[in-house]
Amino acid sequence: MTTGRLFGLGLGPGDPELVTLKALRLLRAAPVVAYPGPEEGDSFARRIVAEWLDRGQREIRVRFPMRPGPPPAAIYEGAAAQLAAVMDAGEDVAYLCQGDPLFYGSFAGILTRLAARYKVTVVPGVSSLTACAAAASVPLVQRDETLAVIPATLAEDELALRLTQVDAAAIIKLGRHFPKLRRVLSRLGLLDGAIYVERASLPNQLVAPLATVDPARVPYFATALVWRAGPGA
Amino acid sequence: MTTGRLFGLGLGPGDPELVTLKALRLLRAAPVVAYPGPEEGDSFARRIVAEWLDRGQREIRVRFPMRPGPPPAAIYEGAAAQLAAVMDAGEDVAYLCQGDPLFYGSFAGILTRLAARYKVTVVPGVSSLTACAAAASVPLVQRDETLAVIPATLAEDELALRLTQVDAAAIIKLGRHFPKLRRVLSRLGLLDGAIYVERASLPNQLVAPLATVDPARVPYFATALVWRAGPGA
Repeated sequence: MTTGRLFGLGLGPGDPELVTLKALRLLRAAPVVAYPGPEEGDSFARRIVAEWLDRGQREIRVRFPMRPGPPPAAIYEGAAAQLAAVMDAGEDVAYLCQGDPLFYGSFAGILTRLAARYKVTVVPGVSSLTACAAAASVPLVQRDETLAVIPATLAEDELALRLTQVDAAAIIKLGRHFPKLRRVLSRLGLLDGAIYVERASLPNQLVAPLATVDPARVPYFATALVWRAGPGA
Repeated sequence: MTTGRLFGLGLGPGDPELVTLKALRLLRAAPVVAYPGPEEGDSFARRIVAEWLDRGQREIRVRFPMRPGPPPAAIYEGAAAQLAAVMDAGEDVAYLCQGDPLFYGSFAGILTRLAARYKVTVVPGVSSLTACAAAASVPLVQRDETLAVIPATLAEDELALRLTQVDAAAIIKLGRHFPKLRRVLSRLGLLDGAIYVERASLPNQLVAPLATVDPARVPYFATALVWRAGPGA
């Protein structure tokens, strides 16, 4: 019996039409699909491709606690063991990833535990980074500009330092860190050109000047786009 | 008569299967397709979707000189005028972009000249950034890590400074700047874990430890992936 393979499928930012032809083909061919999800409620990755999960595929849900900070290693260990058992039994597994599999997200913790023992193929997807720029319809980076991707969890001074060193920045994972980011942007004179994006590519997508956003309603999965010389300059 | 619309279609890094369902649908629906290309030879963006250009679409090729530095503004002005004439005549135009339309590349120069007068829709694509990580099968960024995208055209000290300030970096547009980057990585102790990627997602894709790459054969469209704590740590 041949050992099964692991496919990490990037499914893009949320619009099912932003799935690639390759991810769709491999999804439909996989007898088993696995995906991350919260302890309660829907898996966002699964929801992107729900319309194509109609072929009786077996599903494995990896439950992550929805609290701040990195998830316990035990969750990755358990998921890796479950996927390994499937592959040892000769079946391929497709692990569903919102955005891109290697750009933040849970697939890294699975990959690093299984790459030495199994054949792994990563299918890149449209990342939230470029989906946010598309939602705003503003060039993210041009010519010889530099770009930084910065989690808003950094300390205020760290955030400020990093923002002064690049031409463009995407600040991710805003949530309760939004007021801190807003202070930093204001201090650096970058507030006016900053753009706020939520649920890029989904029907209820929100794009707004960051200065107008109510800090009380900012979710974790929201992104700020900031340019030193202003948007699209 | 209704004025035509402009679609900026991200086509991904090169593998036609990494085109999204949305880009493919809009490509097939567009009566006119435009794309950047060198003065002589094939357009890379066009080649990605050549198999679907079989419906008699009219094609507009925007010719860019293949020399270093930003292309003359006159090229963008000319292209924008050509596309405007098509839309004024009531036809939609799909502008083909390798990778993502707003992540480097020529679409920004078209967009900024036409956005005020025409309806523009940007369809994000798989960027070379995550395609390179997928080719290497190594997590690009995890948890609260920071990432920088840095053109290799920067001065040596600038390059060194920026590499010390992030957890992960993609250095793009290597070409003749490769020896400089190699010196910087060596000086910072980052050479051993650095990965070199060329033609990510294409059949002749090349992934190699950066330290083993012959500087004499590095093309412009090659990328280095560097991690402060080593790949996938």
